[in-house]
Amino acid sequence: MQRKSFGNVECPIARSLERVGEWWSLLIIRDALHGLTRFDAFQKSLGIAPNMLTRRLNALVAAGLLERRRYSERPPRDEYVLTASGRDLRPVLLALMAWGNKHFAPEGASVLLAEANTGAVADPVLVDRTSGRPITETDYRLVPGPAAGERMRQRLASASQTPSPDQDASPQVTRRPRRSAKKSG
Amino acid sequence: MQRKSFGNVECPIARSLERVGEWWSLLIIRDALHGLTRFDAFQKSLGIAPNMLTRRLNALVAAGLLERRRYSERPPRDEYVLTASGRDLRPVLLALMAWGNKHFAPEGASVLLAEANTGAVADPVLVDRTSGRPITETDYRLVPGPAAGERMRQRLASASQTPSPDQDASPQVTRRPRRSAKKSG
Repeated sequence: MQRKSFGNVECPIARSLERVGEWWSLLIIRDALHGLTRFDAFQKSLGIAPNMLTRRLNALVAAGLLERRRYSERPPRDEYVLTASGRDLRPVLLALMAWGNKHFAPEGASVLLAEANTGAVADPVLVDRTSGRPITETDYRLVPGPAAGERMRQRLASASQTPSPDQDASPQVTRRPRRSAKKSG
Repeated sequence: MQRKSFGNVECPIARSLERVGEWWSLLIIRDALHGLTRFDAFQKSLGIAPNMLTRRLNALVAAGLLERRRYSERPPRDEYVLTASGRDLRPVLLALMAWGNKHFAPEGASVLLAEANTGAVADPVLVDRTSGRPITETDYRLVPGPAAGERMRQRLASASQTPSPDQDASPQVTRRPRRSAKKSG
């Protein structure tokens, strides 16, 4: 069984990864959020092979995360500017940053988030905008949205989404429900 | 110039991507957060080729995000349980989910986050834990942490981190500062 095209699946995480599920892509977005726009600048920052960079930039343009803009006619040169959806990746990257700082920086953090005005170090945490409460595993669960199909509903219903860290996994039912008889395609 | 090993770089995002910078890995973590633990269950959920799944599970175990536990001796069978660092990826995946819902679900959301008790739909947003303020580009910037080296300091100092969406990118200086003369290794 080969990999499906994730673009057709309902899961929003899979759809997102289809756009950026390759580390170069996310590092290019990171650099773009830092203000880089030009091929040379990305190349210097990332130490990436030029053909690979070209490929990733084209993919990010095709996915609508970067916009190509001509800044010089002679010689012809383009720059790459974040679109709104590209810019909206910032929270994902900041969550990755926080995770990296927590688990993979034994020598201490190299990058931190700080309030622009005061310089006070910030601790980025995901909360519910409405209630302001932190999104913990016990308080918040995934539920089917209005566009959820049968398979997604079954998946979410069967998911034991919140096993606590100290819960023994052995009694857990890991078998997923039978797929619905309906075949796609 | 070939790609560096990201494990040695200071950037916490690059270090994180070294652990999960491949979409199968993040989808496996997603399924593990849903409660899946067994090879068969991951395989059915993802439609991934078995040899690829084996490789990704081994990589996630090696990276310390999953722990292998023997649940049957005859036949020998292992299950894969999230470690604390694997579990801590949940905010990253929820941020990806929110991004996917916002930009790539024209038909409406298939999955939403909801309060476990009330069922009220939640809107996950990144805030500063201390102040409770949303992490916007204008209010929060990246700054060097205690372990930042010279190159990282220069990088952050030169970054125009917060170009507003309507700001024209053309006057932006995209050239990064010269690398310090010091070579590594």
